[in-house]
Amino acid sequence: MYDCIIVGTGPAGFSCALNLKIHNRQFLWFGNGQMSDKVQKTPHVDNYPALPGITGRGLFEAFDAHRQQMEIAITEKQVTNIMPAGDHYMVLADNEVYEARTVALCVGAANAAPLRGEEEFLGRGVSYCATCDGNFYKGKKIAVYANAPKFEHEVEFLADLAESVDFYPAYPEPGVVRENVHVSTDYPVEIKGELKACEVTLKSGESREVDGVFLLRNAIAPAIMLKNLVVENGHIVVNRKQETNLPGCYAAGDCTGRPYQYAKAVGEGNVAAHEIIEYLAEADKKEK
Amino acid sequence: MYDCIIVGTGPAGFSCALNLKIHNRQFLWFGNGQMSDKVQKTPHVDNYPALPGITGRGLFEAFDAHRQQMEIAITEKQVTNIMPAGDHYMVLADNEVYEARTVALCVGAANAAPLRGEEEFLGRGVSYCATCDGNFYKGKKIAVYANAPKFEHEVEFLADLAESVDFYPAYPEPGVVRENVHVSTDYPVEIKGELKACEVTLKSGESREVDGVFLLRNAIAPAIMLKNLVVENGHIVVNRKQETNLPGCYAAGDCTGRPYQYAKAVGEGNVAAHEIIEYLAEADKKEK
Repeated sequence: MYDCIIVGTGPAGFSCALNLKIHNRQFLWFGNGQMSDKVQKTPHVDNYPALPGITGRGLFEAFDAHRQQMEIAITEKQVTNIMPAGDHYMVLADNEVYEARTVALCVGAANAAPLRGEEEFLGRGVSYCATCDGNFYKGKKIAVYANAPKFEHEVEFLADLAESVDFYPAYPEPGVVRENVHVSTDYPVEIKGELKACEVTLKSGESREVDGVFLLRNAIAPAIMLKNLVVENGHIVVNRKQETNLPGCYAAGDCTGRPYQYAKAVGEGNVAAHEIIEYLAEADKKEK
Repeated sequence: MYDCIIVGTGPAGFSCALNLKIHNRQFLWFGNGQMSDKVQKTPHVDNYPALPGITGRGLFEAFDAHRQQMEIAITEKQVTNIMPAGDHYMVLADNEVYEARTVALCVGAANAAPLRGEEEFLGRGVSYCATCDGNFYKGKKIAVYANAPKFEHEVEFLADLAESVDFYPAYPEPGVVRENVHVSTDYPVEIKGELKACEVTLKSGESREVDGVFLLRNAIAPAIMLKNLVVENGHIVVNRKQETNLPGCYAAGDCTGRPYQYAKAVGEGNVAAHEIIEYLAEADKKEK
């Protein structure tokens, strides 16, 4: 049983991990070994105090050097489900179960807001896992959204099975080149259907008929990942202590709302860690 | 009329100033040219993300270099009073009046909590200003508390007037050497009296009879500086937007509560700035 599982490797997750590490807490930190693609892609940051005019890449390198110096490990697995289990949480990551007394959701803004229709059709034409569900779409027409290049091997795996793939990469210069893969610069905004998902509406207003939709993201929308989590306008609702509505469940960074700022994210990650440490100490006292 | 007056030059104030500057807002930033003595005195900081194992002095230098690179000026004056004036605030700093549409209180933790009895006896034996009130204490016994070396010339000015001075510096290696000045390493915790202050209770439990008490600080306790500001347990009450109970008045950093952390402070300063920018934009819209 871990003291905490942190989901998300952006600045909020790092700040949280840093403070749990300093306080000798046992935790797992799930996410991307490259921490945050979003940070790395930022051309220029003027307002991270003490690092004037740094590039996103430079900021990432500074975070990563700090992480390595503190010997904090990232576990490169994707969390798909979190279940409250009385006094702790069960966390499903790459189909393995991990248990922790608390969770810290630091999943970023883009991941916090599901597409319209996503939750409704999840398991009915909408999937997060190519390996798990790819075989249902042999010879079919599918749409695949991916928010990081690391998912491209899953896109290729799906292209081997499906008749055709509409591919919507949410990053520049995608590397998938297949005859049956149509790479689009448009962006899915809604999934429609009746009993099953059968249409994707794009930002341009265009609609595409499909048999299934794969959404490959660094993190699942928290409201889908964790039932009964209160989310408003795509943001996890937290108080000044970064507590969500669920005891032992904290959130920090862009997923809790604007402004989407590195300084805010590291601040909230710090506060979440300190509140988690206090929560654990209180729980220990009660047990005695 | 300024868009904002920021009170306090620690990390929260700096983060707030940085973002107002980037957004081309007109503001004054009152405080200490050395920013924060507290930051400078910190031996070692492990958890300011991206700057592993930095000294407080190193962190100050990085903040200061960033400040200079952004051409942000500090006005070295002490704010003693803030008065709401309808749609703006009047701010008294070194006995001059400045006007601003919003204020951001970033005064730190130590300054947020007044001594017990301080408010009760303010103007009745308790003073914040040696120049203003020194002459009332000619030939008398006084206590002087100071939280920065820059106040030592005021201590000397008082020593020239008073019979004797109990001096309580809240920093190491004070430089006042006078026959009638007794430098103590103890710490005042309460001011007692009846019609007038006449006794200082120290942390050690000892009590000292005095005719008056001077409290020389970088900032006055916010609840005293700004009437009707809601403060609980020595911390300014704010919501997730860093709004206090007074419209247009924001607070950030240690003065809003624990954890007392640089990451939290810069995060809150950032959020306060963005909320101030939004508040000003909303107010501009209404005027049109």
